[in-house]
Amino acid sequence: MSLRDLMAEAIAKAIDDAGCTALDIDTVIVGNMLGERLSGQAHLGALAASLLPHRPPALRAEAACASGSVAVHTACALLESGRAETVLVIGAEKMTDATNEVVAAGLMGAADADLDSPSGLTFPGIFGLITARYMHEWGLTREQLNLVSAKHHANAVLNPFAQFRTAIPAEKIGQSPLVADPLRLLDCSPVSDGAAAIILSTKTKSDVRLAASSLATDAVSITERPTITSFPASREAAERAYADAGLRPSDISVVELHDCFSIAALISLEDMGFASPGEGISLYSQEPDIAVNGTGGLKACGHPVAATGVKQIGDVCKQLRTGKKRYGLAQNFGGACATCCVHILEHA
Amino acid sequence: MSLRDLMAEAIAKAIDDAGCTALDIDTVIVGNMLGERLSGQAHLGALAASLLPHRPPALRAEAACASGSVAVHTACALLESGRAETVLVIGAEKMTDATNEVVAAGLMGAADADLDSPSGLTFPGIFGLITARYMHEWGLTREQLNLVSAKHHANAVLNPFAQFRTAIPAEKIGQSPLVADPLRLLDCSPVSDGAAAIILSTKTKSDVRLAASSLATDAVSITERPTITSFPASREAAERAYADAGLRPSDISVVELHDCFSIAALISLEDMGFASPGEGISLYSQEPDIAVNGTGGLKACGHPVAATGVKQIGDVCKQLRTGKKRYGLAQNFGGACATCCVHILEHA
Repeated sequence: MSLRDLMAEAIAKAIDDAGCTALDIDTVIVGNMLGERLSGQAHLGALAASLLPHRPPALRAEAACASGSVAVHTACALLESGRAETVLVIGAEKMTDATNEVVAAGLMGAADADLDSPSGLTFPGIFGLITARYMHEWGLTREQLNLVSAKHHANAVLNPFAQFRTAIPAEKIGQSPLVADPLRLLDCSPVSDGAAAIILSTKTKSDVRLAASSLATDAVSITERPTITSFPASREAAERAYADAGLRPSDISVVELHDCFSIAALISLEDMGFASPGEGISLYSQEPDIAVNGTGGLKACGHPVAATGVKQIGDVCKQLRTGKKRYGLAQNFGGACATCCVHILEHA
Repeated sequence: MSLRDLMAEAIAKAIDDAGCTALDIDTVIVGNMLGERLSGQAHLGALAASLLPHRPPALRAEAACASGSVAVHTACALLESGRAETVLVIGAEKMTDATNEVVAAGLMGAADADLDSPSGLTFPGIFGLITARYMHEWGLTREQLNLVSAKHHANAVLNPFAQFRTAIPAEKIGQSPLVADPLRLLDCSPVSDGAAAIILSTKTKSDVRLAASSLATDAVSITERPTITSFPASREAAERAYADAGLRPSDISVVELHDCFSIAALISLEDMGFASPGEGISLYSQEPDIAVNGTGGLKACGHPVAATGVKQIGDVCKQLRTGKKRYGLAQNFGGACATCCVHILEHA
């Protein structure tokens, strides 16, 4: 399926599910990172709008792997400004037509082309460094880290939208091929095609509402960071989201977070206040009070870059409804968390 | 200069000119089209925010050649929503490090990769078709068309920011090398490096305000248009901008419009109500009541894709102040006007 076909399928399903028709959509926002490089296609806002009969005003938002959630954040501003009443947000990425080299080079656009890329780093390399440093600082073991991807894979077994629906025993994670020491293949989210679409409206009634949408930024290059085992943008975005929603971490029942690599899940849990620094693994070694990546996360659902941030919000919504829970949180970041966007959803 | 250096210079100048400091900026929006393809750099929102001491929340907006104005439009929504009080908008493009083939392929990302690109079309080709059809429909002559670029070049002589500050006699335009019949080299805006930055604030007082910001969309592919000699997105964006500002075309004194190719200036003037269909050339053959591309437009200032839409707004602002005029309009479009964004500025 092409980028256009992926978007068309997601749009049709979102409209089917929503309490409105295509003609109610007055604005379209597309999150996408790699269309220009991998599909020769920019201008995806207008392209997506062309899939609707009335071609409403449209634009594309990009913030590397956070493009999807940043598109949702932009939609919030348009809705709150009164410029829009019903916004279609699409996250889409087509990655599997290109060679691994081209995809890896494209993804390195999320890092700093002057400060990071010339050293030969790739994102598995960057997160390999982060993992090694985290293990050094906190004594995390390979056996403990195995639990993260194993749990995410187990969660995906019942998710019909997951790329990988196979349970994988924890010990197999640590036996998978080495990618960037200490990271192994099954620590890494895959290259994926995919699209997700949601409709946000101030006009149509829904049992779920966005209680907060917050965006924070950090240095793009890891060379400009005081530490690489905590991400200030994630902390800041989560703190602001809690403040805006009038909540604390303990109020949240469902979390979808950005496990582009297994270590990112632990750091994100700590930065967002679900665990103390160095103790993120406790949510995998014990039965936690909250559902973390109940759908399988990026590891098992796949990580079609910009689709992820939109998909997470749809998935938090589904889990709140199914589990009859009140509050859920979606955290999506770009690069080594140079951009982080956190959304909190409230289910009535 | 790299994309980063271009942005840094524009940001420093905007802050110098504004009644605020860098620390007042609470949000950064970057318009950019080709960074991923030509500089290996996505994630330009965070990269630009990294150039400020406090790294405020940031994102990138893209809509092909309309990326700059769409970034401004997004800033308006963030300001109106109350999420932001002072937004730095940067449009930037680095084009001259790549070969012509790579630049042309990148720019074709603004067209439809499935419906337009396989035919071998490039943008000079698309606007060559548009020019030929316009000449057929309205009897426009080569000699008349020469007046457009000649006027824009004459206007640029006194603009220190223009890429080309040489006056070019009208007959030389028609003698320049053929690019895509009937379009000649001097009908085409050039490949350029550049950046422009403006600061929009609801907190800081200014003698100039944005009176309207409107966005409209059309089919990306010219194969899906009923006509190619009028651009509905431009008509719609202008009509909505006039309505939002409570104005008519005759109230406007200063216009900066999107003359990516000379024919686009004529069509834009007609679609925005400054001339009847087929009569856009009258604003070049007679002395008009309004200043059209008084800075030199895309033809003479250069067209560093996403910088253009931001630069136009800065230039309308300067002209309103210098000429002691009240209303000015900036029109910026993407592709063959699949995205059009119109801003109206009011000078007190």
